[in-house]
Amino acid sequence: MDWSEQVVLVTGATGSFGRKFAELMLREYHPRKIIIFSRDELKQHDMRAAGFDHPSLRYFIGDVRDPQRLERAFAGVTVLVHAAALKQVPACEYNPFEAIQTNIMGGRNVIEAAINQGVRRILALSTDKAVNPVNLYGATKMGCEGLISAFQSLLGMRCWIFRFANIVGPKVRKRGRTVISDFIHRLQQDSGKLLILGNGKQAKSYLTAAECVDAMLFAIERAAGDLHVFNLGCDDSLTVDRIAELVIEAMGLPGVKLEYTGTEGGWPGDVPRFKLDVTRINRLGWKAKMTSEQAVNTAIEALVPLCRP
Amino acid sequence: MDWSEQVVLVTGATGSFGRKFAELMLREYHPRKIIIFSRDELKQHDMRAAGFDHPSLRYFIGDVRDPQRLERAFAGVTVLVHAAALKQVPACEYNPFEAIQTNIMGGRNVIEAAINQGVRRILALSTDKAVNPVNLYGATKMGCEGLISAFQSLLGMRCWIFRFANIVGPKVRKRGRTVISDFIHRLQQDSGKLLILGNGKQAKSYLTAAECVDAMLFAIERAAGDLHVFNLGCDDSLTVDRIAELVIEAMGLPGVKLEYTGTEGGWPGDVPRFKLDVTRINRLGWKAKMTSEQAVNTAIEALVPLCRP
Repeated sequence: MDWSEQVVLVTGATGSFGRKFAELMLREYHPRKIIIFSRDELKQHDMRAAGFDHPSLRYFIGDVRDPQRLERAFAGVTVLVHAAALKQVPACEYNPFEAIQTNIMGGRNVIEAAINQGVRRILALSTDKAVNPVNLYGATKMGCEGLISAFQSLLGMRCWIFRFANIVGPKVRKRGRTVISDFIHRLQQDSGKLLILGNGKQAKSYLTAAECVDAMLFAIERAAGDLHVFNLGCDDSLTVDRIAELVIEAMGLPGVKLEYTGTEGGWPGDVPRFKLDVTRINRLGWKAKMTSEQAVNTAIEALVPLCRP
Repeated sequence: MDWSEQVVLVTGATGSFGRKFAELMLREYHPRKIIIFSRDELKQHDMRAAGFDHPSLRYFIGDVRDPQRLERAFAGVTVLVHAAALKQVPACEYNPFEAIQTNIMGGRNVIEAAINQGVRRILALSTDKAVNPVNLYGATKMGCEGLISAFQSLLGMRCWIFRFANIVGPKVRKRGRTVISDFIHRLQQDSGKLLILGNGKQAKSYLTAAECVDAMLFAIERAAGDLHVFNLGCDDSLTVDRIAELVIEAMGLPGVKLEYTGTEGGWPGDVPRFKLDVTRINRLGWKAKMTSEQAVNTAIEALVPLCRP
């Protein structure tokens, strides 16, 4: 695939994953154009201010719930990377209507705008939680996967759905949005103890955003056929207790007392233990370079200095 | 389960399946109350006019897209049977926005209204097409299944999802809405030839609405656990060609020339060949009494006399 001919639109491009995708794509693949589509004007401003600018970059403010803006943004686009979603599990539980509007209806708007422009390649971010969903986030992503599957079958464009476990990246996240930044913020406020949501035994797989992007671009070059669903992740998982240890170690805080809320999951709709089956992407020839612990450590090492007061 | 204590609300209760469900439930299970919820005032009127009235019946006009009406309808309800949907595959292709609004958002509204009333038993109609959907109807039903799965996991009520293949019933359907009524109408207009959408080799499983209801009520009495997905159907399938033969025979029209549009599926999003795996419901102890051919014949025999000019 000749990327120099492609016009790539990334929805949710100011989110931590979308931004990473745009950065790596620009640096390594040199597409003709990348359109940074997101509803967050402030974050778009921050990205520019942080020096993310290039003749091939276009910033476009729009909401996936707004078909008119999408229609305008998609002029000339050849590849869609759909990363926009109301992502956090608790956010979806507390705003179910917004979750459905954004993740399902929004997904449909995006796919339709792409189809109307004759886009023939669609990459969509999904989640391990879209399989037998136990929370609304998973349910809405399952709905979005269903729409992509249906549109693909009706219209024949090539689609890749990527199901991720937990993506970690060296980007300061809002307080409490990931387990890592949550721990750092709590320890900054009180370095004597750390409250852990759940029983600490929740174990999940972690992958860096950079490895995710690498796997996606690997898959779209290599996978034959028209509709693909790939689980992306590594072979192992990491407990919340171990993440707590790693954060405490990185912050140089000996003697922190760990406290637990004690429930099996950390919050309503949490998936206490899950490891993705990544056989398919491994068979295609891609394997995560980092273990879950290495991926989490990369994020901790990048985050801890940034979080110092 | 003591049905005499239950207040059952059926959404989509004026549709061919919902109506059948309400009729059989009333006749065989004598619940305390059945609420006929549907948006179609005319069809509710027709049902009453056809004599479907009883002290336990309540008619309620409302749209699943209208949470306020749902909230009012659900007062006192203990069992939900969610049968409302934009059902026909082509209708969903041509009205994708309405399909999503009705089948996904509407599904969510219904479940939320049920939860707010403390309903602990939810029966939902789904479709074989909700697995790896190849059309928007399947995609929206998959989204709705996802929501039920998520709400069940969050809130712990008991849910049964029933995936059907093709339901046939002795009810006059609008022209062209099922293959049987389509054939009858075409042959009434021109008894010399019959145009078959597709190549005639499409083979599907058929089950009568009465058998569906029977299987559902069997399953909710017998299945242990909180979230159930049952495929309902019979073991065999029937080709469109064979259905054409049966209709022609029933109408007493020798020498009809069969013509074909020739595509593999009958319309965009058609599933040319599909047979449901009904092992689970069979293992529970329920088995369809009729073959696909018998089920289709039941419908033909009921429909042909009704369609005579």
